[in-house]
Amino acid sequence: MPMYIHMSDAQLKEELSTQMTHFESCCAQNLKLNMARGKPAKQQLDEVSDILSVITTGDECFDDGLDTRNYGDLSGIPSAKVYWADILGCKPEQTFIGGSASLNLMFDVISKAYTHGLLHSQRPWCREEKVKFLCPSPGYDRHFRITELFGAELITVPMTAEGPDMDMVEELVKDPQVKGIWCVPKYSNPDGIIYSNRTIQRFANLQPAAPDFIIMWDNAYCIHEFEGEYVQIPDILSLCEAAGRPDMVYEFASTSKITFAGAGFSVVASSVANIAYISKLFSVQMISQDKINQLRHVLYLKDKAHTISVMKRHAAIMAPKFKCVSDILEKEIKPCGIANWNRPTGGYFVSLNTMPGTATHALALCKEAGVEMTGAGAAFPYGKDPQDSNIRIAPSLPPVEELEKAMEIFCICLKMAALEKLLNQ
Amino acid sequence: MPMYIHMSDAQLKEELSTQMTHFESCCAQNLKLNMARGKPAKQQLDEVSDILSVITTGDECFDDGLDTRNYGDLSGIPSAKVYWADILGCKPEQTFIGGSASLNLMFDVISKAYTHGLLHSQRPWCREEKVKFLCPSPGYDRHFRITELFGAELITVPMTAEGPDMDMVEELVKDPQVKGIWCVPKYSNPDGIIYSNRTIQRFANLQPAAPDFIIMWDNAYCIHEFEGEYVQIPDILSLCEAAGRPDMVYEFASTSKITFAGAGFSVVASSVANIAYISKLFSVQMISQDKINQLRHVLYLKDKAHTISVMKRHAAIMAPKFKCVSDILEKEIKPCGIANWNRPTGGYFVSLNTMPGTATHALALCKEAGVEMTGAGAAFPYGKDPQDSNIRIAPSLPPVEELEKAMEIFCICLKMAALEKLLNQ
Repeated sequence: MPMYIHMSDAQLKEELSTQMTHFESCCAQNLKLNMARGKPAKQQLDEVSDILSVITTGDECFDDGLDTRNYGDLSGIPSAKVYWADILGCKPEQTFIGGSASLNLMFDVISKAYTHGLLHSQRPWCREEKVKFLCPSPGYDRHFRITELFGAELITVPMTAEGPDMDMVEELVKDPQVKGIWCVPKYSNPDGIIYSNRTIQRFANLQPAAPDFIIMWDNAYCIHEFEGEYVQIPDILSLCEAAGRPDMVYEFASTSKITFAGAGFSVVASSVANIAYISKLFSVQMISQDKINQLRHVLYLKDKAHTISVMKRHAAIMAPKFKCVSDILEKEIKPCGIANWNRPTGGYFVSLNTMPGTATHALALCKEAGVEMTGAGAAFPYGKDPQDSNIRIAPSLPPVEELEKAMEIFCICLKMAALEKLLNQ
Repeated sequence: MPMYIHMSDAQLKEELSTQMTHFESCCAQNLKLNMARGKPAKQQLDEVSDILSVITTGDECFDDGLDTRNYGDLSGIPSAKVYWADILGCKPEQTFIGGSASLNLMFDVISKAYTHGLLHSQRPWCREEKVKFLCPSPGYDRHFRITELFGAELITVPMTAEGPDMDMVEELVKDPQVKGIWCVPKYSNPDGIIYSNRTIQRFANLQPAAPDFIIMWDNAYCIHEFEGEYVQIPDILSLCEAAGRPDMVYEFASTSKITFAGAGFSVVASSVANIAYISKLFSVQMISQDKINQLRHVLYLKDKAHTISVMKRHAAIMAPKFKCVSDILEKEIKPCGIANWNRPTGGYFVSLNTMPGTATHALALCKEAGVEMTGAGAAFPYGKDPQDSNIRIAPSLPPVEELEKAMEIFCICLKMAALEKLLNQ
């Protein structure tokens, strides 16, 4: 079969007719399949559910003499700080331990910047005439929405194979209204790119005009390899410190995809001065996070080495799903020449770029056939993909047999959208 | 012995000398006693630690088919909403379930009012020229600090035996800059007052000039009797609805003093419209709270009736401590005529008013003798008690034998401060 762009109108029509027949038979099955979000599968949750029996009595609730059942220890129990410092390669005193989602900690940092300013702010961001925020795209919709909620102008920065386009970032930060940037340095959401050492060093060396410019370093997939061995990336905190701007970065991580997405714990790490600054604001907001759950996690996950071994069990479940996505795309889409996609070795997504102008239509067809996907454009500021091309595939939730079915339907929809586009040109 | 105010200078000097001798012998013991905050005692935490074995396997993590281990259900699992609706006497759809501290939910409401406005706000509070907030005092320092953090002017409203002075409240809300009021309707912190039905009705009937005026109804001690049977107060949500202002109140509660202070769960209840409004803002901030802990609590506490039976076990531990405080004050302080205090039947505090102008000094003496108390003035806006008279006693944490010692020292310090004051007049 020739690639679609080399087909005659007659061939296109015939192929469209074939795909429509497939599509209709899929619709008739009344399926309900979900590849919308990076949700762990039930099998993964079962795999780590022995964490639930780690603490079953009051006597087990003590962290080196500290009773985790009572008030206090706002910034986290000591062993939780040691744990996250080990994972992230920073110091325990550089951490503040959060609740079940690191997103809430990110929101808190931006919210506090808005209401009270950050450590080096001249005024709260709500008193600034304008605030701009850099959004490497495709990126994580929930990041962009936080800064959008606080009225920031979102500026798209393209992604390269090494991470965000640093030439552009270095240029943009010369504008004092540019107050920060969202980053997912390892297995970026959705591209699955690991920022190169050079990119990370360029981040640390940034010379922003805004004294309170912040790098929001969401290390969400810091130990989330599903193929191959653990990959170490340079510690941004110490690089920023070495470059003379220790307060320029806030790093985030959580156990949402290590233990439970609905009941894990999280961390924000930064300079000691930044942690002191936000802790003071946090002291008005909260009394303490769930310290028993902190201890439960530390007892179960132990340390970085042991956590990596737990991640191997997730990898064994995840890898076949990513292989399934890859195999079906290779077989169904590659010959048509209508899309390209990444082949990540960690993280939770496959990012696919289909024929420009067809993503929205393809996803509408998916929905019609009972396959729920992340909305078109979601990975771009304001939910608008200028190319209408990027699609985020989240294969983690469905079992492989459902995933195969969902991917089959997805490919039919991609093809139909492309064929209709070519026929209408 | 005559009351201090009837003593001659010579008698005062002799009494001071006696108390100073006691004081010095206390100091020599290098004690470390704490009556500073309303912390549950270890014995109370032990009493409810069987909650830790309620969920020990993955199979137990399902709430009517919903897997609490995974993402989703931002506003809480269905059974948690049913639980809190039962406790508070509202509807499940009027609740949003929070993490380990209701304080964080209160902060969130005020923070959102500041950054985005509430449902009926004409603009975010950060765009208002001035915001004033009513603070019935003595009250809870952490409440006042939240509104202070967002730049509100704190206005003191005196407490009466029926709750806040409602004549004054009704007058003050005519000012459109007055945006809300902090309330602890049952066993008010620190006075231990239960608002009368008449007071609660007057709250519901308020006609504030500000369209976005809110009653911050912190029902922290909703089922926290330590003496006598459960006391029902009218449901403020339905009263406000009946009065035509369903969106005027946000109610808060938590299990911090039912199960664990460091690992409970919380709720905000309000009109369905308010819950929808804040849920939309929360959807940018968070993914979900810890849903396993929600389920753990519902399975353990079951419903209101069973929770009240759990509270009886706390009462058995708390009651002797409040009796100890009361007995020692009766014996040591009443004859001197230098202070009066309340005798609550629930809540966590005894509020004492000593001779005006002596509270700060008395508490400094306590500190010197190794007894940590809530700071003088803490129960007033900006931490300033105009009378320098109110002292909050929190007897819950220490075991009775330590509490006796602490109270003994406290009484000595009260006496010394009063005697010195009288001698210097």
